[in-house]
Amino acid sequence: MERMVVIGGDAAGMSAASQARKRRPAQELEIIAFERGDYTSYAACGIPYLVGGLVEEVDELIARRPETFRDQYQIDARIRHEVVGIDLDAQEVEVRNLEEGRTFRQGWDQLVVATGAAPLRPPIPGIDAEGIYGVQTLNDGTAVLAAVEEKPREAVVVGGGYIGLEMAEAMVLQGINVTLVEQAPQPMTTLDPDMGARVADALKGAGVQLRLEEPVEAFQVENGRVTGVQTGEGTLPADLVILGLGTRPRSELARDAGIGIGETGGILTDIRMRTDQDGVWAAGDCIETFHRVSNQPVAIALGTHANKQGRVAGINLGGGYATFPGVVGTAVSKICDVEVARTGLSSREAAEAGFRFTSVVVQSTTRAHYYPGARRMSTKIIAEEDTGRLLGAQIVGLEGAAKRIDVLATCLWNEMTVGEIQGMDLSYAPPFSPVWDPVLIAARKASEKLEAR
Amino acid sequence: MERMVVIGGDAAGMSAASQARKRRPAQELEIIAFERGDYTSYAACGIPYLVGGLVEEVDELIARRPETFRDQYQIDARIRHEVVGIDLDAQEVEVRNLEEGRTFRQGWDQLVVATGAAPLRPPIPGIDAEGIYGVQTLNDGTAVLAAVEEKPREAVVVGGGYIGLEMAEAMVLQGINVTLVEQAPQPMTTLDPDMGARVADALKGAGVQLRLEEPVEAFQVENGRVTGVQTGEGTLPADLVILGLGTRPRSELARDAGIGIGETGGILTDIRMRTDQDGVWAAGDCIETFHRVSNQPVAIALGTHANKQGRVAGINLGGGYATFPGVVGTAVSKICDVEVARTGLSSREAAEAGFRFTSVVVQSTTRAHYYPGARRMSTKIIAEEDTGRLLGAQIVGLEGAAKRIDVLATCLWNEMTVGEIQGMDLSYAPPFSPVWDPVLIAARKASEKLEAR
Repeated sequence: MERMVVIGGDAAGMSAASQARKRRPAQELEIIAFERGDYTSYAACGIPYLVGGLVEEVDELIARRPETFRDQYQIDARIRHEVVGIDLDAQEVEVRNLEEGRTFRQGWDQLVVATGAAPLRPPIPGIDAEGIYGVQTLNDGTAVLAAVEEKPREAVVVGGGYIGLEMAEAMVLQGINVTLVEQAPQPMTTLDPDMGARVADALKGAGVQLRLEEPVEAFQVENGRVTGVQTGEGTLPADLVILGLGTRPRSELARDAGIGIGETGGILTDIRMRTDQDGVWAAGDCIETFHRVSNQPVAIALGTHANKQGRVAGINLGGGYATFPGVVGTAVSKICDVEVARTGLSSREAAEAGFRFTSVVVQSTTRAHYYPGARRMSTKIIAEEDTGRLLGAQIVGLEGAAKRIDVLATCLWNEMTVGEIQGMDLSYAPPFSPVWDPVLIAARKASEKLEAR
Repeated sequence: MERMVVIGGDAAGMSAASQARKRRPAQELEIIAFERGDYTSYAACGIPYLVGGLVEEVDELIARRPETFRDQYQIDARIRHEVVGIDLDAQEVEVRNLEEGRTFRQGWDQLVVATGAAPLRPPIPGIDAEGIYGVQTLNDGTAVLAAVEEKPREAVVVGGGYIGLEMAEAMVLQGINVTLVEQAPQPMTTLDPDMGARVADALKGAGVQLRLEEPVEAFQVENGRVTGVQTGEGTLPADLVILGLGTRPRSELARDAGIGIGETGGILTDIRMRTDQDGVWAAGDCIETFHRVSNQPVAIALGTHANKQGRVAGINLGGGYATFPGVVGTAVSKICDVEVARTGLSSREAAEAGFRFTSVVVQSTTRAHYYPGARRMSTKIIAEEDTGRLLGAQIVGLEGAAKRIDVLATCLWNEMTVGEIQGMDLSYAPPFSPVWDPVLIAARKASEKLEAR
């Protein structure tokens, strides 16, 4: 009988465990999953909606509890168990039972490292004070929810990425005064500046105070608790601070054990999710993956990738065959009424990757202009100059705008040119689209711009 | 100076005219467009929403009036002018001025045939009675609107295609009792029966009476006006009848002139929209085009194809280069609360084309299950057995479901397999999708089913 040990009980780890179990019964493969938090298999992306009150119970964010894994899958999922070391030679992990305070060793034949991502915490004075929260695990989420329920007056979000903006909206919904502090000229720097500016307008419209181009210099702390955020422009009062500065792969455990780490800081794997160590697999936010447009390694923390990668690891570990084909950098978010989406490379990323490119932005509507509920949307397309190949796209608009990014992600996946895209047979009816779909118009304008050179 | 004559002043014809003008100024190319109806460049797809009262004024459906074409584009667009003959040898068309009743001949150097489609009117006794309407042109639309404004009590829709169903909804919105008579076991026979059954449920829920598997045998007529619809099961009272039996290419004029017609009844063109006659182009619902999945000719009446084809004709005629790449059979509609979409081949079409295939249907939601507004949706995927290649897809669901068909249309365009599709990087955030997008789940299930064979 073999034993599989999983480090991290969320999307990647538990997908791997479930898929392995599906292929190998309990008599053949024992599966133990260690999770340092209180929850397994949860929707971390749902945290802002829990904090904002759109989701009423933390339970709604939990897909499967440890009991379910034990009873239905014969997977021994143990919460409040933190793995603190990996011993490759002995094929053992060192585990701390956080409930009982004791540490023990657990042997494995197959190990899956699914340690997730950690919110970035730059060394700003005071950053470890109480009242300053990263938002990554469901435990983080319930901690912020508890803080919000104490009715703070002033919240400051530091950093305008997806999580930062979603949390800003959530706290506005809870009646808190929210200020967003961002060192760049726009929030959401994964978008081009012109598209990010549209998001800034939406945030202002929703009542979020924006402090752009203001790097945080220090946190004001009294009795160990945060009371303010100091920027170059002054001090903002703060009862509560959310860090939205991005994340990094939580790969220290793997690195310390001698498992190979890539240039992005993520664990290196092959397309079947094998690390460079026999019997050791990795999946989810802790790994480095491959960007199909830039052909560069990237570390992208996203539940959808984690699920897919965990599944691939579990299938392979269970004796099947599956591969993870990489990513094209697709992301979507809804900030108040505004939908925001991107795929591929931004202008900055395209330049960094070495591409020569051009771009267009088109204004359109989500439905035929005469159909009730037609809303404004802007679509930006970035295309390679010489070949016309699509390199990236961004959408900012109102209801019904953002999910169209998937068409462009699919075009990127297939290395289509804007000339090809403009002729595609996309669905049209007045409740869904103008007769020229915004995606087609954007591709057409990009194609015309390239031809006119 | 050359002269371009356009037959038909709607999407295809006027797109061709506009694109030709863009490339060749009025001193170099004279452009005359003849339209037998009262309107140019209108949104025929918007007619059901005009009839249903969602669109208040017929003006909202008109993109450009003849005055606009004359004043802004130097295009001589003449409404109420019906072309009744094409003389290829003389390079002239014979035109009837419907206002004045006189007929004249007009020479051309370049001719664009854009005569559209005609609603099918099978030879059922009484079908030419007053009160029986096809819905194809905006004149048809205003006629139906006038009839609806007379407050009929009973309306019968014959045929359950897109237009039939959209008109059924429109008339329900106007407080009319609506019965849909369809000879097939389900409405919307462009879907597979299992998916069509979901549409039937939606129609019933909206208050439409369904009479399925009831072919119409005759129309009851009194004093030249329809009063009832006779089926094998009895007679339905009818103050108003809408024909929703589909359309055929309106290609008689071209055929009579000796222009080549394909097996579908549509005018033959090459990819640049040239017919088999020098200087004669064709575009829009009157032509035959190419289906990229079945590799068969098809005639599909859709505004989005007409616009693209007209544009291609105009660019080429104006000295540029453009091609129309064919279609994959994408269509979308909203019937009451239910969104319906399809792309590629249905099971019947796949069988007819000779494919060996399998299919799966998956139930999912439009958003994360815990996010407010998550709605049910069903996705069906049809894939080739030996290769796993996607052949077609269908979606029936509530708000936010249908536009996802575009991803699958893009996959078809690129001849992707379900195995490839399941790994794609589609956007995920709780307001937009479960963590596994319904498209990805469907592809995965299809892939698993093929592997399990």
